[in-house]
Amino acid sequence: MQTDTQTDTLTSQTHSLIASDRVEGTPVRRSGGKKIGTIERLMIDKHSGSVAYAVLSFGGLLGMGQKHAPIPWARLTYDRTLGAYHLDLTEEEISRAPSLPAGQEFDWGDRSREIEIHNYYRVPPYWGAY
Amino acid sequence: MQTDTQTDTLTSQTHSLIASDRVEGTPVRRSGGKKIGTIERLMIDKHSGSVAYAVLSFGGLLGMGQKHAPIPWARLTYDRTLGAYHLDLTEEEISRAPSLPAGQEFDWGDRSREIEIHNYYRVPPYWGAY
Repeated sequence: MQTDTQTDTLTSQTHSLIASDRVEGTPVRRSGGKKIGTIERLMIDKHSGSVAYAVLSFGGLLGMGQKHAPIPWARLTYDRTLGAYHLDLTEEEISRAPSLPAGQEFDWGDRSREIEIHNYYRVPPYWGAY
Repeated sequence: MQTDTQTDTLTSQTHSLIASDRVEGTPVRRSGGKKIGTIERLMIDKHSGSVAYAVLSFGGLLGMGQKHAPIPWARLTYDRTLGAYHLDLTEEEISRAPSLPAGQEFDWGDRSREIEIHNYYRVPPYWGAY
């Protein structure tokens, strides 16, 4: 199985760019291929120009009860075989992940909330140390 | 006139994130407010997770003759008063800028083409030195 991770040094530089509107709507699957949800949008840090989060849309039925979870970009890897981003979270882990009902807006200005997100996913924050 | 540049250190950290699907479709204007075009999409470097280009859609009439020009992200600044990204290029400069008919796909793998783009806009390349 060939995989293409965002940090894979084997990935040829010749295909190193991806369009934002292609990422939006891309499925997110866990190992084994079960779909967790889809990427709703990317959140970009205006200062550095780097992607901070992919907002994962998951759960719910017929548009009801859907949730949004910001996933630190570093935690997602693209899997060419699955045609999806791969996220190694169990059903239980995703249910405990920081999230909001789909209709609500995140308070992206709340740094303590952002720290909580990065602690949950155990990755360094996009804005440097804290 | 208040401006909000991507690198403005005065911009509070509390509003440092922007959604990819909000950037898509945002107008691009030159000084004085004249519209150059709109941002079609962002091109993201998979390796670093940083935005390499905003693809500017411009020119044409009734959907005919429209062109796409990749603008290095560092060259765009958001102007809150204009509700648009600001790009300091004259009509003549934008007509000479590296671009393609809207229907055609860029060969993002062609590094010499990317160097041409960065030389044109006189900004350092997103992949480091060349």
